[in-house]
Amino acid sequence: MQSRVIGVIESCFREKFGTPRQGALVPEAPARLRIRPEFMPEHALQGLEEFSHVWLLFEFHLNTNKVFRPKIHPPRLQGKTVGLFASRSPHRPTPIGLTLARLERIQGDTLYLSGVDLVNSTPILDVKPYISSCDRPVRARTGWVRRCRAPRMRVRFAPKALEDISLLVPARGRARLKRLISKSLSHDPRNPRDRAQLRPEKELAFFILHYDAYFRVSGGQAIISRVTKADEASRRRPPLQTGFWLGA
Amino acid sequence: MQSRVIGVIESCFREKFGTPRQGALVPEAPARLRIRPEFMPEHALQGLEEFSHVWLLFEFHLNTNKVFRPKIHPPRLQGKTVGLFASRSPHRPTPIGLTLARLERIQGDTLYLSGVDLVNSTPILDVKPYISSCDRPVRARTGWVRRCRAPRMRVRFAPKALEDISLLVPARGRARLKRLISKSLSHDPRNPRDRAQLRPEKELAFFILHYDAYFRVSGGQAIISRVTKADEASRRRPPLQTGFWLGA
Repeated sequence: MQSRVIGVIESCFREKFGTPRQGALVPEAPARLRIRPEFMPEHALQGLEEFSHVWLLFEFHLNTNKVFRPKIHPPRLQGKTVGLFASRSPHRPTPIGLTLARLERIQGDTLYLSGVDLVNSTPILDVKPYISSCDRPVRARTGWVRRCRAPRMRVRFAPKALEDISLLVPARGRARLKRLISKSLSHDPRNPRDRAQLRPEKELAFFILHYDAYFRVSGGQAIISRVTKADEASRRRPPLQTGFWLGA
Repeated sequence: MQSRVIGVIESCFREKFGTPRQGALVPEAPARLRIRPEFMPEHALQGLEEFSHVWLLFEFHLNTNKVFRPKIHPPRLQGKTVGLFASRSPHRPTPIGLTLARLERIQGDTLYLSGVDLVNSTPILDVKPYISSCDRPVRARTGWVRRCRAPRMRVRFAPKALEDISLLVPARGRARLKRLISKSLSHDPRNPRDRAQLRPEKELAFFILHYDAYFRVSGGQAIISRVTKADEASRRRPPLQTGFWLGA
């Protein structure tokens, strides 16, 4: 079967670390998808604007594992395992992910989305409308995911971090950036090994939009210590257009 | 990106004609999926039994179109068109379908499913658990699909058809087969061209389990005129194990 990329996502999340594990965790996370001209978006998107949500089928393009492992360690199971097919792990026989996004609007060939848990430049294979009558089961029972709530941290900005944001970000984007950092961090991006092995006062950072947000975790609380402009050139991550998240 | 088939579906629907356009339309439609041994189902399925529903990602393997068409004619729009990405049409840049199925039980390497809108022997690329917290939007708005309800027909069995079923089907399967035929037919398997061009008294048939169900449509009503044992050898369709739908 041939797969074709219809476009790559532009997302505020620039690296795997810090990207939420579900789109619903950070509903305000902005993203944008431009459909490639060969798929004739001027026709192929017609009627989609009437839907509030879309499914994105995407390639887990950052997988490095080459060996098939039938069991996985989901972060929220804290060391216990479940079968791969009982999980939404990226490491699957066919490395295709499924995520629901809110469709804010369509402009020309571009979908403006929110609540997207994808890292910037993820290749998108398909967009399908969310249709309640086929996609919403009447009575659904969710297994281990329900019992094991995702970890949740309180997040606080140190005065230095707030000052950094004031200096770096245009006024109209500050509140939004703070919410975005705070929501993303509240779900604890660290994996179980990080949590077990790192000293609590160890400073970590995640790359969001054009910034590095530094934080320390202690007890159930994360403190954002500082925010810097990321040195994007040296990070060799796919670029992100400036201002896309401000609607520019 | 490499796609790998984890198993092929066994389904009561033997041909595209008569296969429901959504799984929810015929919730009792039985199906079975055996995971191939190389994916170590004894480990990879662990924990999945706690979920009531699963997503199936599958290949639209019966597509014959080679050309990309950005607009499609959904059956329920009666001739009008919508953009491909505003539809769940099989004819997509990456021919992968998404359907929700009810997981009845797991036995060894086999998933017993219901409400499956897939034709027998469809290649399955992935099974993912349905997780309400990421797959169910809070307020969803559905576009054209909502306005244009799927056609619905009354279905009646002629005495001859009931007699045929009594002769062909073991007692414990008769009521189930009748429900299955009746539900499948109530959603009108005919495409808009059939509906416009065929004489109303024209006898049509669809292939379900091991049977051909013949019917005529007149007004908003379908009458099942007769049911015969299908000549499976000459149909050259992928085989279906006898009795699978009776739980045998």
